[in-house]
Amino acid sequence: MDKKIIVVFQQSRVPFFSVRESHILRLRAALPAAEVIWCHSRDEFLAALPNAEVALTWRFQQEWFDLAPELRKIATPAAGRDFFAVTSVPERIEIKNGTFHGPLMAESVLGLLLAFNRGILTAYRHQLQGDLWPDHALLGARLISGTHAVIIGFGKIGQHVGRMLKHFNIRVTGIRRTAVSAADLPMWFESGDSVQPPACLHRVLADADHVIMLLPSDTGTDHFLGEREFECMPAHAVVYNFGRGNSIDETSLAKALRAGSIRGACLDVFQQEPLTAESPLADGNLPGLVRMPHASAFTEMYIERFIDECIEWLR
Amino acid sequence: MDKKIIVVFQQSRVPFFSVRESHILRLRAALPAAEVIWCHSRDEFLAALPNAEVALTWRFQQEWFDLAPELRKIATPAAGRDFFAVTSVPERIEIKNGTFHGPLMAESVLGLLLAFNRGILTAYRHQLQGDLWPDHALLGARLISGTHAVIIGFGKIGQHVGRMLKHFNIRVTGIRRTAVSAADLPMWFESGDSVQPPACLHRVLADADHVIMLLPSDTGTDHFLGEREFECMPAHAVVYNFGRGNSIDETSLAKALRAGSIRGACLDVFQQEPLTAESPLADGNLPGLVRMPHASAFTEMYIERFIDECIEWLR
Repeated sequence: MDKKIIVVFQQSRVPFFSVRESHILRLRAALPAAEVIWCHSRDEFLAALPNAEVALTWRFQQEWFDLAPELRKIATPAAGRDFFAVTSVPERIEIKNGTFHGPLMAESVLGLLLAFNRGILTAYRHQLQGDLWPDHALLGARLISGTHAVIIGFGKIGQHVGRMLKHFNIRVTGIRRTAVSAADLPMWFESGDSVQPPACLHRVLADADHVIMLLPSDTGTDHFLGEREFECMPAHAVVYNFGRGNSIDETSLAKALRAGSIRGACLDVFQQEPLTAESPLADGNLPGLVRMPHASAFTEMYIERFIDECIEWLR
Repeated sequence: MDKKIIVVFQQSRVPFFSVRESHILRLRAALPAAEVIWCHSRDEFLAALPNAEVALTWRFQQEWFDLAPELRKIATPAAGRDFFAVTSVPERIEIKNGTFHGPLMAESVLGLLLAFNRGILTAYRHQLQGDLWPDHALLGARLISGTHAVIIGFGKIGQHVGRMLKHFNIRVTGIRRTAVSAADLPMWFESGDSVQPPACLHRVLADADHVIMLLPSDTGTDHFLGEREFECMPAHAVVYNFGRGNSIDETSLAKALRAGSIRGACLDVFQQEPLTAESPLADGNLPGLVRMPHASAFTEMYIERFIDECIEWLR
């Protein structure tokens, strides 16, 4: 009897996102009936595809399906579909995206929300400038308790973030295209929390303290926030983007920050990544701008959690 | 019948910590049977003391008791007793410290813990230096889930901080001089959480990811953490101080940071405040050093919460 062949090609420029030997050993131990082939290059991966029944990979292209007649399952750690350049998936093949990102990303979202509002980033900037006691620079410090977060993109990750915000006594409004029936509302919703359709966006933004973007890139989300939306927000609002960079009109955002019409923007994702000097957000001294290099899920545990899900799925 | 006289002298160089007219109006509305006198200087306060039954103040001195024969109650927003230069309080007088700090400070503790561990502060430093995509500077980013916090000073504030840490799946060890009976352990304790006496400090520190200091200054807490204690900690440990500056030997801490024998120190309080250029921690580029200017409770709501407690107490 032939062994099921699992091909792993999980390389990234970021070490956190690359498979290591310990992960391969875990797969082999957990799935002794399968042969696990670890590929270190695209060429090795393409050479292994013809016999592969399962592929674990960051990227896939439409034409590769033709190389892989035995392929039945593809798993990717990505939460979004944008790394897969595929237009139609053969019926025989099931694709599974990672679903472990919520707890990882919630730590980064909460971290930025608290660091921005509690004056921590302001204090650190002053420290690095040689200021010994910048207490008067911190008079904009705010509590997050009692404030209102609008989470745009209220799927698995958005709902996990919302649940963590409740521990800090924050009112949550999710914005979501797909309607949610009363029975399917999150268990942790309290009076005042709600899910609203995009049609209500402008009304909801007018009352937002925190606007947390978690939209995918592949579903018509381009410039979901633009000039008009920044105008709707109160001057103390801060925008956070942990989804994809296309969802924000970066030129309008830079203008809003410069004009002080919103208080800040904490961004993990950008229209163009890595960021280039041509970006409207390249100026690191733009008022209220805090940038992360698409790092909200950086952790030694990243691939570990993905392997957990793969083992569960393939067992 | 004479009205009860409440004297308020609540000025600070930090606007958040100063009484405003709205607070005085709230007191008057809530306590119509009393006369509320708002003093704007120490002289006014001392002149009003002879008839005062209640004083709301940041500071008090031993000799002022003699000026105030009618005084029965003093309330201060401070959590610690160190702003009161008093050695013996007359029996007729009850002193009440604010007890509202936990939720305020927990936001700052969590904010620093997350910002440090998730690479947010590192990313921000690189941004300010003009780095467009510092992802390789963030390879030290860690999740806080699954880690271990040692909270030194496990009173009201420490226990509130601990409760918030549990939402992030952090194991909590409280260090506390006064023994806690099993029945008095916090309700939120889970398997693995514990309260330990100071005698266990070195053993507990060896296993700490986060060492959170919340000690008062007035009870023999000088240099509770010194050279020996920093040596006990693992190299990935980060120290946080939100208590009082005397509890850390700053020279030893600076040495430990410079040597990389611990990963960082996020400090809100210092031996000398405001910090001076002579401090061992004055160099803002010390590896892993993050300073706040005694600002962990900065919020517009600070005096508001104090007035809440005063009204409750005096009604």
